[in-house]
Amino acid sequence: MKLEAQWVVGFTDGEGCFHVGINPHPEMSSGYQVLPEFTVVQHERDVQILHALKSFFGCGVVRKNHGDRMAYRVRSQDHLLQIILPFFMKHPLKTKKNVDFLKFRDVLLLMEKGSHLTADGIEAIRAVASQMNRGASR
Amino acid sequence: MKLEAQWVVGFTDGEGCFHVGINPHPEMSSGYQVLPEFTVVQHERDVQILHALKSFFGCGVVRKNHGDRMAYRVRSQDHLLQIILPFFMKHPLKTKKNVDFLKFRDVLLLMEKGSHLTADGIEAIRAVASQMNRGASR
Repeated sequence: MKLEAQWVVGFTDGEGCFHVGINPHPEMSSGYQVLPEFTVVQHERDVQILHALKSFFGCGVVRKNHGDRMAYRVRSQDHLLQIILPFFMKHPLKTKKNVDFLKFRDVLLLMEKGSHLTADGIEAIRAVASQMNRGASR
Repeated sequence: MKLEAQWVVGFTDGEGCFHVGINPHPEMSSGYQVLPEFTVVQHERDVQILHALKSFFGCGVVRKNHGDRMAYRVRSQDHLLQIILPFFMKHPLKTKKNVDFLKFRDVLLLMEKGSHLTADGIEAIRAVASQMNRGASR
C-alpha cells in the first residue's frame, strides 16, 4: 500500500501521538532517561496501515501494544531527528496536535545539544514536555 | 485553512464515522425512518478543522456534540449521494473503515431507489446496516 504525504499528515492529525517520557535512571549522568517517541496505534485489523507507515518513513517498528491494539513506533533519536521532524516541518499538522509536535521537536533539539545529560538540561526538557499532551492530542 | 483530498482521506480514516440510524417513525409508510450520516467529531479546540471540512465538501453543518466536543455532520441524502459518496469512491479510505463506507454507500443506493419506504426495503437496509461499525471504525 502506497501512502501519500498528505494522507500521512491527516492520519497523524487523527491518530498520531508525540510523547516524551522522562524516567529515573541511575546509570545516566543526569539521573534521568529521556524517551521521545512518535506512535500511531490501531486495532490489529488495520495492522497493514502501520506497516505502510513504516515503509513510508523507512524507520520505526510495528509491535503489539495492548490487547488487540498494534502500534507503529519510532524511538530512535537519529530517526526522529533526521526523518520524522523534517517530514512534519515540511508537511505541518493541521490540528492543535501541531503544538505538541513543535514541543516534541524542541525536546529533540535540546537532546541533540546533550541537554538530557545534565541536571539543568533535564529541567529544561521537563519544562517543555510538561506542556505537551494536555488534551490537544491523545 | 485549505485542505487537500489526501489529508481529508487520512483524517477520515482516523476520525470519521459512517453511521446509519434506523428508528421507528409512525408517519413513514414503512414505519421506520432511515438516517444515514457522515460525522467527524473533535475537541472544540479543533473546531476550525471541522469548518475547514465543511468548506472542503461545501455541505454539512458544524454543531456541538457532547460536552466539549464538536461535530461536522452531513445528513442530507442529496449531499451524501452527490458529494460524500463520489469523493470517497474517487479517493478510497485506506483502513478497514472503507468496508463501513461501502456498506454506507449500499444503504444510500437502496434509499435512492426508495427502499426505505417499504417494509421489505427496510429489512434489506437493516441487513446491510447491521454489518457496519462492528469495531472497524468508531
